[in-house]
This record gives sequence, C-alpha cells and structure tokens, in this order.
Amino acid sequence: MSVSLPHVVPSSSIGGPVTIYEVGPRDGLQNEQSVVPTEVKAELVRRLVAAGLTTIETTSFVSPRWVPQLADAGELLESLGEAGRGARRPVLVPNERGLDRALEHGVGAVAIFGSATETFAQRNLGRSVAESVEMFAPVVKRARDEDLWVRAYVSMAFGDPWEGPVPIPQVADVCERLMALGADQLSLGDTIGTGTPGHVEALLAELDARGIGVERIGVHFHDTYGQALSNTMAALRAGVRVVDASTGGLGGCPYAKSATGNLATEDLVWALHGLGIETGVDLDALVVTSVWMAEQLGRPAPSRVVKALAGADS
Amino acid sequence: MSVSLPHVVPSSSIGGPVTIYEVGPRDGLQNEQSVVPTEVKAELVRRLVAAGLTTIETTSFVSPRWVPQLADAGELLESLGEAGRGARRPVLVPNERGLDRALEHGVGAVAIFGSATETFAQRNLGRSVAESVEMFAPVVKRARDEDLWVRAYVSMAFGDPWEGPVPIPQVADVCERLMALGADQLSLGDTIGTGTPGHVEALLAELDARGIGVERIGVHFHDTYGQALSNTMAALRAGVRVVDASTGGLGGCPYAKSATGNLATEDLVWALHGLGIETGVDLDALVVTSVWMAEQLGRPAPSRVVKALAGADS
Repeated sequence: MSVSLPHVVPSSSIGGPVTIYEVGPRDGLQNEQSVVPTEVKAELVRRLVAAGLTTIETTSFVSPRWVPQLADAGELLESLGEAGRGARRPVLVPNERGLDRALEHGVGAVAIFGSATETFAQRNLGRSVAESVEMFAPVVKRARDEDLWVRAYVSMAFGDPWEGPVPIPQVADVCERLMALGADQLSLGDTIGTGTPGHVEALLAELDARGIGVERIGVHFHDTYGQALSNTMAALRAGVRVVDASTGGLGGCPYAKSATGNLATEDLVWALHGLGIETGVDLDALVVTSVWMAEQLGRPAPSRVVKALAGADS
Repeated sequence: MSVSLPHVVPSSSIGGPVTIYEVGPRDGLQNEQSVVPTEVKAELVRRLVAAGLTTIETTSFVSPRWVPQLADAGELLESLGEAGRGARRPVLVPNERGLDRALEHGVGAVAIFGSATETFAQRNLGRSVAESVEMFAPVVKRARDEDLWVRAYVSMAFGDPWEGPVPIPQVADVCERLMALGADQLSLGDTIGTGTPGHVEALLAELDARGIGVERIGVHFHDTYGQALSNTMAALRAGVRVVDASTGGLGGCPYAKSATGNLATEDLVWALHGLGIETGVDLDALVVTSVWMAEQLGRPAPSRVVKALAGADS
C-alpha cells in the first residue's frame, strides 16, 4: 500500500526554490543519550550528501562537558575531509573557544545559538540575553573576518516552557541584535513546537517591518504538537526559502521517546515534491538512510514518510 | 516541559468558524482487529460530547460480515439514546439495507461512502463507480424523504494505492454525481494520505467551477505521509469550514501500527485554537479521552498533542 511519490500539483501561493537546511547530524543527534561513534556520524553525513542534500549542519564545537555526544566534532570533520567543509557545512560554535576549534579544522561556515527568552538564555547559555549577544559579538566578527558564512539561531522564538508565549517584539529585538552583529541568516526556532500559522505570519511580518526580509530567514519547527509542516507551509507562503529539517525526524527530547523531534526531512520533501518544488533530494535514498540511522540508534524514526515507505519495522 | 495552550495569533488568511466532524468512533475504530465492547464505544461517544465535540459520526450499519467491529451499530445507538441521535450524529449506511437498519434506530443523519476510483469501488463496494452511484440513489432519496441530513464521502480523492494519482476531473465527476443525488455535504477523502496543498487547492477550485462551493465541502485527511494538518490548513485558506478528524488519531491501517491514521482531533484543535478559531472543545478533556481510549486498545494514541500533553506513556 505504500506509494513512493506524491502527485505533483503546484500551488498558486507556495513556490520555490527552497533550500533544505539539514540539521540531523547536529541538532538531531545532540540529545541522544548513548554516544554515536564518529564513523557512524561521518557515514550519516556522507549518505545525506549522496541523497542530494546540499546544506548540512554537521556538528557543534560545544564544550564536551556540556554535550559529550559532540565531543568528537574535530575528529568528525577530519574524517569527512572536503565533504565536511565549505559554506554549506556549518558547524555550531557556542563561543570564541568553539570558534577557535572550528577554525583549526578549516570550517567554512558557523552558526551561533541565541535565545529569545531570558530563562532559556540563563539555563542554556548561563547568562542574560544581552550578555549572550555580547559573547557572540566577537565570534561573529572574527568569523566574518575569516570569510565564514554565519547563521544565527533564535531559539524559543514562539513559545518557552517556562515563560509561555514569547511576545513577538521581544523575539524581533533579539533577531535585530543578532543580525546587527553581522550574521548572514537567521533561523527562527520553535524549540518547543507550540507555534501555529498565524504566529508564523505575524513574526515574519514584524521582522520584515524591521528590515529583516524573508530572504535572510530560515525557519526551524519542531513537531511536538504536530504543527511543524503546517507552520513550514505558512512560512513558505510568506516567502521564506530556507527550511530546517532533520532526517527521519531525529532529535527532540529523549524523555518523550521519538515523538517530539524536528520536522522530518522526508515529510518536508514529500510536501515540496508534491508542490512541484525541486529539492534535488532522492527521497528513497533518504528513507534508506533514516532506516539505517534508526537501526544504529535502536528505535524507529518518527518520520511518517519513513514509516509509510519503509514499513512498520523501520 | 508540556504546554497546554498555544499562543493565540490569528492569521489573515485562515478564519473561522470551523466545524470539527469527529470520525473516531466509526472510521477510527472500524479497522481495529479486536472487537471493542459496545459499552466502551458508547462511553467514547459520551466523553467526546462532554469534551465539546458537536458533530460525531458514531458507527456504520455495514454488514457485520464485512466489518465485525461495527456489528453492534444498533445496540450502540440504543445505548446512547438521545446522545446518539439527531442531525449531528451521522451514521454510515453502505446501502438500502443499512439505511433500513439505521431508520429502525431513529437516526437523524446518514453518510454514504463512494469512491473516486474504479479499483477501490470494486474492492470496497464490489461494483463499478457508476453502479455504486446507482446503488446510492435510492438510499439518498429515501433519506431525504425522511428528512435526514446526508453526507457523501468520496474516498481516494487524491491518490489511490492501485491507480496512483487520481485525475482531478475524474474526482470531480464522482463528486458531481453524488451531489446530484441530493447529498447535503461532500467529504473529500485523502484515504492514503498522499495529497499536498497545491492538490487540495486545485481540487477545490475544480469543484467550485462545477458549482460545488466550499460551503458544501468537508475535508478528510490521513496522516500517512505527515501531510494531514498542512493539507487541512490549505483547505481552510480556500474557505472550507468542515474538517474531519479522529480523536487521538485513531484509525488507519492496522498493519502499519499507529502511524497512518486520520488527522488527530487534538492536533487540529491545537492549530485552530492557536489561530484564534473557537471550537468549543476542551482540549485537556479530549486528551484524557484519547489516553483512556488508548488504554482500551492497548497501544498509544498517534496524536502528537496527546503524546506531548499526556507524556510518553500515553
């Protein structure tokens, strides 16, 4: 009963091109409790490249004390060689020390990870929003001086588990401050997945009014409440052209099993291909990759497309 | 980390009101392998009413030989009493014999179940599309004579597992024929879940061009490929105001475990409430109902909202 391709019917209000920004190797794996071997991570990135994904965030140069899973960031990049370098292989750098390590390995792009809320800034970064922007300033400046491409994540851009709904002007303020540092692209993160389409439209409109147009914005939705693809479509209708997704739906909170991860790349690709938007992604190869990765992790991929195409056992 | 309410931010392009047409007791349960006791079904309907759902398809007067699960349709209605009657408690009737049985129990609304494709018509109804329309003609006529409200399902309205993508004119032809019989409302069924938003828009536009406006259309999406809510939003943007959903995401093919069911009512309610569209549904009560039903069935509810709000064990 599985069907491997949707009917292609373009929409009058959702067009392309769309760049899929694959976050599986970094955002997807960082919450895994058991450490994934470096060679498996490298194989994952190589398979994603082979499946046609052009932009892949490979790892994070976060302190190994905070995220032991990603302690092998340098080794991974060395293992990947050229496949792990260039402007389309960003790595996360939490601070200058992380940037130093990333530069030692010849990266071509970096991402910083800010917060729209004070509570999450304190919990995740150990400082206020203002202090974290100060911390990021020299990171972005040095990255630009080195001709790196720079992305700025804004987490908790819709809801926050401690503060509730996050006021749009507050989110836009943080976006402005991070872009003022010199970032090339923003990624608006619905970290806890509570957003809905009107919220997406309103935040994008506020940013546009402040001079941050959709051409500099990516969207990053989590599927905790089943809203990720619907929100993504709202962003595409508003003109956004970069969408974060995680192969197989990897990621999310390990305490809620496999249900609360990122938007699954396969589910996004299905939607885009159905809309006639070319992605260059070989969906079958991507599904095979997610099934393989699920075997490495010992539990099924949350992606609905993976379940449908690979069967109940994947 | 669970959050029980989304931030309310209306959209400029998705408005209300929206009627949720709850299909869990019928469409959700009909594929269950183990027979659910009549009293559990009655309790499910009562709980759905208590949670604020106004329109509930309660059962089907299909032959017990075809669907043993629903052999207790009459008993269920007797058990429900007034809560199971009226224009907002449709029951499925496959043919005149089913209508006879439904009328014996005093129903106020019925639904017929047609197919947009010849293969599914043969497999599900044992006759051609044209023959099935002939079979439905006296059912609808008699139902109208009895002042019943009548809904016509069109299954395989997007893709068909044997025939692939279903041409839009072919679907529209079947819709026209069923509406010409005198049905009050169409329900467009993406039975295998392959549709995407452009396809939704195009089918609705074709129906509108043929004089079947959105005010007479409901949409019925399955989440097999993760597209159900995104497609629902596309239909709402086009003006559709009736959305089918199944509490907890009940339903779908039992061979693929819990991943391929109907759009979950909770996930829809989350989206609608986030958009500021009132539904009258008490989301917490609905989640409790789905958790209770999942316990009856012995496996977790597929709804993401249920997982998020009730925890990983639900």
